[in-house]
Amino acid sequence: MTVVEYDGRIVVVDVGLRFPTPEMVGIDLVLPDFAYLRERARDIEAIVITHGHEDHIGALPWVLRELGASRAPTVYAGPLTLALARSKLEEHRLRDVPMHTMEAGESVELGPFGLELIHMTHSIPDASAVSLTTELGTVLITGDYKFDQTPVDGVPADISRLAELGRDGVLLLCGDSTNVDRPGFSPSESGVGPHLEEVFARCDGRIVVTSFASNIHRVQQVIDAASALGRKVALVGRSMRKNVNIGRTLGHIEVPEGMLVGPREIDDFPDERMVIVSTGSQGEPLSALRRMAYRDHPQVELHEGDTVVFSATPIPGNERAVNETIDRLYQIGCEVITPRDAPVHASGHGYAEEVKLMLNLVKPRYVMPFHGDFKRMRMHAQLAEAVGVPPEDIFQGDNGLPLDIDEQGARFGPREQSGMIFVDGVEIGDMADVALRDRRMMSADGIFIVVVTVAERDGSSVAEPEVIFRGVPFLDEAGKLVDEIRSTVEGSLRRSAKERIKEVALLAQALHDDLAKLVYDRLRRRPMVLPVVVEV
Amino acid sequence: MTVVEYDGRIVVVDVGLRFPTPEMVGIDLVLPDFAYLRERARDIEAIVITHGHEDHIGALPWVLRELGASRAPTVYAGPLTLALARSKLEEHRLRDVPMHTMEAGESVELGPFGLELIHMTHSIPDASAVSLTTELGTVLITGDYKFDQTPVDGVPADISRLAELGRDGVLLLCGDSTNVDRPGFSPSESGVGPHLEEVFARCDGRIVVTSFASNIHRVQQVIDAASALGRKVALVGRSMRKNVNIGRTLGHIEVPEGMLVGPREIDDFPDERMVIVSTGSQGEPLSALRRMAYRDHPQVELHEGDTVVFSATPIPGNERAVNETIDRLYQIGCEVITPRDAPVHASGHGYAEEVKLMLNLVKPRYVMPFHGDFKRMRMHAQLAEAVGVPPEDIFQGDNGLPLDIDEQGARFGPREQSGMIFVDGVEIGDMADVALRDRRMMSADGIFIVVVTVAERDGSSVAEPEVIFRGVPFLDEAGKLVDEIRSTVEGSLRRSAKERIKEVALLAQALHDDLAKLVYDRLRRRPMVLPVVVEV
Repeated sequence: MTVVEYDGRIVVVDVGLRFPTPEMVGIDLVLPDFAYLRERARDIEAIVITHGHEDHIGALPWVLRELGASRAPTVYAGPLTLALARSKLEEHRLRDVPMHTMEAGESVELGPFGLELIHMTHSIPDASAVSLTTELGTVLITGDYKFDQTPVDGVPADISRLAELGRDGVLLLCGDSTNVDRPGFSPSESGVGPHLEEVFARCDGRIVVTSFASNIHRVQQVIDAASALGRKVALVGRSMRKNVNIGRTLGHIEVPEGMLVGPREIDDFPDERMVIVSTGSQGEPLSALRRMAYRDHPQVELHEGDTVVFSATPIPGNERAVNETIDRLYQIGCEVITPRDAPVHASGHGYAEEVKLMLNLVKPRYVMPFHGDFKRMRMHAQLAEAVGVPPEDIFQGDNGLPLDIDEQGARFGPREQSGMIFVDGVEIGDMADVALRDRRMMSADGIFIVVVTVAERDGSSVAEPEVIFRGVPFLDEAGKLVDEIRSTVEGSLRRSAKERIKEVALLAQALHDDLAKLVYDRLRRRPMVLPVVVEV
Repeated sequence: MTVVEYDGRIVVVDVGLRFPTPEMVGIDLVLPDFAYLRERARDIEAIVITHGHEDHIGALPWVLRELGASRAPTVYAGPLTLALARSKLEEHRLRDVPMHTMEAGESVELGPFGLELIHMTHSIPDASAVSLTTELGTVLITGDYKFDQTPVDGVPADISRLAELGRDGVLLLCGDSTNVDRPGFSPSESGVGPHLEEVFARCDGRIVVTSFASNIHRVQQVIDAASALGRKVALVGRSMRKNVNIGRTLGHIEVPEGMLVGPREIDDFPDERMVIVSTGSQGEPLSALRRMAYRDHPQVELHEGDTVVFSATPIPGNERAVNETIDRLYQIGCEVITPRDAPVHASGHGYAEEVKLMLNLVKPRYVMPFHGDFKRMRMHAQLAEAVGVPPEDIFQGDNGLPLDIDEQGARFGPREQSGMIFVDGVEIGDMADVALRDRRMMSADGIFIVVVTVAERDGSSVAEPEVIFRGVPFLDEAGKLVDEIRSTVEGSLRRSAKERIKEVALLAQALHDDLAKLVYDRLRRRPMVLPVVVEV
């Protein structure tokens, strides 16, 4: 999420989310902290979205709800992007959000900003760069892009408009860094189709192709390859069917009459006449492919002779889940083809030469690398230097660190509140560290709960202490430990009584210390120890 | 761990461990289930170890303790392997374990078995294949190996002895499958040194090289490269210092006089005169390199101008931890070189052509692929077919599935108990699934504990219910929920009273059901709900 501000007015570009890492135990989604926007809600002219991927639109429902959906700023984006955004908002029961469809090349005035979308190519149709022009100059945010010279829909990135902007003078370029570490030019998306057809031609049984549901041109190429070889296509997985539907409605994908069959009809066709297009290329736990691999899919039962084609690479961090899925497929007896075996995937992000081409087209005064880890943002800066941008005009930013530009120059300003907020169930918020720490502690070593019932008048025990444990292994050993815990409780209460400690909080503190020591001595682990003192 | 059995007598080959996956919450180590050996303890002639890596020796302390350390079978292995095993046993305070050092090429009689170790090359010195000969024939277990024609110590695998065994007739070959998916021959370890020197020559600041501590020949090459460029070497990380010490004692590594400096002396030398060899190539949480990357190492403070060379690739599953470490290093301003940037690593496992070479040398009657996932074991089987082994003589096994061979042929026998056992703290055992499930539940959504104190005579509540929660986020919302929980408890107790339910277990069950419903309604999450009923 990027905030562009001029003369007190704000345009927000993209409102993405990320998925939690394993350390964020139990967290469902990670959103950008939008406290800054909450305080400035009246100043927001618009939200502009570059393209329909989760890391660019995913936080939209939360941001809009937070800003008050009915009084929310208008969302500007291309037709497919808005259709995907609308479907997402409907899932969150957010209707009546003002939206304005823009075609690439179109421009609108938003307060002090002139907004223009510039057509780019990426792994989803309808991707744009965003140009925001004020009296001070033009800020160009590339979004995710590649310079695909032969895209599947025949419409390459609008290089000519980028060059024009460059000639007129761009103040700041914020560019995608995802693939700066790869030398040369990225392969064209349209090169994938013939390789898919080659792979398909070698298969005698069913073919399952898995890819991102939003990669509509990839699905188009799967359909074309299937069609060329006289196979039918079934779409499996909710998001796959949804995205292809939206893509068809908007004319991004063409399906010959009678090609598509429903998931329930798959078994009506011979194996060698069927291609299944499925979600699950990242090994996601509940995805269609994962369920097939674990023999748990209601419609598709894989067997020997089937071939599964991964037309996608694992996003960093998903390697283990993808490998597990692949190995399960081998166990069933399937053949598996990945981008390591055949060029059945092309990245949607430009490589180093494309990043240089962007810099040379746009000729920006200042450069700020976007999208990528520290390594890639630094490599992006090195490429900018290589094409002649002076090092002092390249700004390696950080979330929450605003770049202030005026007639005198550019510099980082004081940090604003930023960071991550968590979605946990239906709630979002600045989740207390303590809750995460507790979860980690309980997940590592379990929990001991000791309930002590004492008389209000003198703090003496009036019932045998209850000892409950969860997530503690080797329960056969535990019986002895429970006896020791009980006698430790008695000892602790006696000592507290002697010291005339009667306050519940202090009793509990003393119990905790004594019990934690005992449990660590016996188990050499530190489960959470939770004494509960009940006064009667 | 492999069990070879003949005429009622047993030789165990390797006793390795694996590291837990993230789903095994809180588990430290995973051991093979050795219940079968426990029952057959008297029949064990020996334990033979192929080489000193954790996945081949790691479970030794537990197996020996289980079998009774003093009456344990003798451990046979090469000198370095035994030295590493001994150091591991000492950490577990296991002394007096009978051990027998064997040189490669040597053979001994063990009951009905003739045992011979055959020298192989791998990413640790002193690796062997194990040949076990009985009246029925010879079983050859390759261990982990590559056919390195120019190993750093000049001693290639004993191809001639393998060929001799093949001429005499090998009954069963159990071969390493780790790299069968890579075409061609693996690059030689000795090719890494010159590339390290090239990389070093381009560095002006300090150089940190990280690799597996057991890869003693790699450390040798780092030392040689440092020496050639007039740099000193410091070893950082406990296992790095330990292994180099053992390696020096046994003559596997030669360090020129005065080359090594202690970790505390690093700052006494100019940056351009220093190479640091460090543990942490897998991004392990407490490793030296990880601590450096997080600016938390007591001796080494990295800064701009330092170069970190990853002379290792991530083991599958460790990619995220390695990438996090690398990105932290970039954030500090270090340069990072990985095997993607320069050939500073060579795998210790042979590629497809080496696996074929092994098959052609040994000419086994039966083949059983070892070490690898389903995919690789199947590819191994395909290679065996390609060199002429009839498909019916290739056995794709599974843990616990014994291959029975007699004069009539070979076939899988009935499954024996096998699987994984967990080490959790100091205890090991067949950890109850329920404990893992509880941990997962608590780590996902936290825990609610509701303590209800009732009078023994009539089950009426005698103190306000205590509500405690841990790992539940958004505590500011919780106040209201606690009130609702209290009134749900009252309602539940009233209903139980009406139904004349007085038994504590039944009261608790009713409370659980009512509270779980309430909590799910309010939070749309399923934290563990634990009612505790105390009778007074």
